[in-house]
Amino acid sequence: MTASPPSLPPVYPEPDDPRLTREVSGVDQTGAATSTSVVHERALTLYLNAQEIVTMMTIGDHPDLLAVGFLLNQNMLRADDEITAIDIDEDLEVVVVRTKRATNYEDKLKKRVRTSGCAQGTAFGDLMENFDAARLDGSARIRTSWLYSLLAQVNTAPSLYLKAGAIHGCVLARQDDILAYIEDVGRHNAVDKIAGWMHLRGVEAADKIFYTTGRLTSEMILKCVAMGVPILVSRSGFTAYGVDLARKAGLTLIGRARGQRFVVLSGPERVVFDAPLRAAK
Amino acid sequence: MTASPPSLPPVYPEPDDPRLTREVSGVDQTGAATSTSVVHERALTLYLNAQEIVTMMTIGDHPDLLAVGFLLNQNMLRADDEITAIDIDEDLEVVVVRTKRATNYEDKLKKRVRTSGCAQGTAFGDLMENFDAARLDGSARIRTSWLYSLLAQVNTAPSLYLKAGAIHGCVLARQDDILAYIEDVGRHNAVDKIAGWMHLRGVEAADKIFYTTGRLTSEMILKCVAMGVPILVSRSGFTAYGVDLARKAGLTLIGRARGQRFVVLSGPERVVFDAPLRAAK
Repeated sequence: MTASPPSLPPVYPEPDDPRLTREVSGVDQTGAATSTSVVHERALTLYLNAQEIVTMMTIGDHPDLLAVGFLLNQNMLRADDEITAIDIDEDLEVVVVRTKRATNYEDKLKKRVRTSGCAQGTAFGDLMENFDAARLDGSARIRTSWLYSLLAQVNTAPSLYLKAGAIHGCVLARQDDILAYIEDVGRHNAVDKIAGWMHLRGVEAADKIFYTTGRLTSEMILKCVAMGVPILVSRSGFTAYGVDLARKAGLTLIGRARGQRFVVLSGPERVVFDAPLRAAK
Repeated sequence: MTASPPSLPPVYPEPDDPRLTREVSGVDQTGAATSTSVVHERALTLYLNAQEIVTMMTIGDHPDLLAVGFLLNQNMLRADDEITAIDIDEDLEVVVVRTKRATNYEDKLKKRVRTSGCAQGTAFGDLMENFDAARLDGSARIRTSWLYSLLAQVNTAPSLYLKAGAIHGCVLARQDDILAYIEDVGRHNAVDKIAGWMHLRGVEAADKIFYTTGRLTSEMILKCVAMGVPILVSRSGFTAYGVDLARKAGLTLIGRARGQRFVVLSGPERVVFDAPLRAAK
C-alpha cells in the first residue's frame, strides 16, 4: 500500500469564490427585507471522446475531477486508461475527457435505474458490474479519536454549507488529516469529484476514510466499494439494502455520526475505541 | 377552483408497517451492542403499457401513486389520459400503468440530464417542456399561522423519519390541514407520490401548499410548477437557479423554514404575516 505523496496540497471548499454563490434578496419571517447567499446550480455536459455521456447539474467547481470521477464510478473509464486530455469550455458548459483507448458506450447508456434520492439514472446497473469482484483492505482501522477530530474539523472549516446551505460535502481523510473536502449540490457529484481527485493525483484508497453528509444508500455503498475505500462515515442514516451491500463487501459503515454519537452497522472490527466519552449522552 | 372532496381521508406515514423498516444490529460509540431501525430500499420497475420506463429505488409503499406521479411529472402521461389499469406485482417488483391512448416514449427515453442531488436522469429536459406555458394561481395565500401549525404537525407526527431517519418527506396541505404526508428514500419519489395522489384522487392544486424536507433545487421547482401548486416550502435551502425558475413561474418559494424562522426568495405577495413572533430570534 502506498500512501499519498506527502507534498500533495489538501483541497478545501472555497466559499468566497464568486462563481459559486450569489446574493439573493427576499423577506424574512417578520416581513423585513433580507439578503442571503445561495449556491449556483448549473449544467455541465460531459463528453467521453466523441460520445455525449450526460448533463449534470453542479456548482461548477472542479469540472475535471467531476468528469473523471463520474466516468470511473460508471465503469466507463478503467483505472489503467490513459487520459490524453481534459478540455473544459466554461461558456459552453462542456467538459471533454479524451482517452487513448477508443470508447463507445452507446449500449451502456441505454440502461437506466433511478437511484435513491435521485432522478432516474444509469448509475446503479453499471456500479453493480464490478461489485462482487471488489476487495477492501482488511487491515485498515479508524480510531474514534480520529473520527471525532474529523467531525470537528469538517463542522468548523469554512464551507459553502456554512455560507449558503443546500449542499452536500464529502471528505477523504487519512487518519484525521483531511486530504480533500469537496462540496456539490448533488451528493453523488461530490463523491465523484473525490474519485476523480484520487485518480488524477495518484492517491491510494486502502488506508483512507471517506466521510459524507449524505445518506448511506445502496448507490453510496457501491461507489465507495468501487473506489476501494474501506471505511465510510456519514452524519446521516442508513438504508437496509445499503447495510446488506456493505456487509457483503466487508465495508465498515458508520452512520448518524454527530458529536460523540455514532452507530456501526457493518465492519465494526475496523473501529478502535480509543477516545474517552463524556459521561452524559 | 374546486377544493378536494371533504370526505377524502388524509394519507399519513405508517412507520409500523413491517414492510418499510427492519431492525439491524450493530455497535454504538461505546462499543456496546445496539439495534436500530433502518428503512428498506428496494427496486421497482415501471412499465407504461408495453414500454419499460425506469427502475426506481423506493421504500415500496404506494407504488400506484409513485408510478402515476412519475409519469405525469415526466410528461409521459397527460392529465386527460384515461388510465385503464394499474397492475402491481410485489414479488416481481413491477408496476404497470395501462392507458387507453397508445404511448411510445422510445425517443424521450434517450434524453438524459443528471439532476442535482441525483444520479443522472431524463427528468430535467422533459420537465422543461411545459414550464413556460404553466400558470399558477395568483390568489392563493399562505398565512404564517398556517405555516407554523404545519411545521409543528409535520415534526411531531409519527413517521419513518422519526423512527429510522435517512428519508425525505413531502406534504400537501390546504391551509394548515395535512391532506397527504408521504415519505421515500428518494426526495423525488416522495414528490411524485404526491402528484400521483392528487391525480388519482381528483384533487385540485390551485389552493394548496407543498412542503418538502428536500432542497429547493431546479428540478423541485419544475415539478411543483408542473403540478400547479403555487406555494412551495422547505426546511432546507435554495439554489440560485431554483430561485430564478420560481420567479419566472410566479411560484412562492419559502426556504429554511424551521421553528419560527424562514426566508421567502420568490412570490412574497402570497405570504400573510398574521402569526405573532416570539421576541428572541
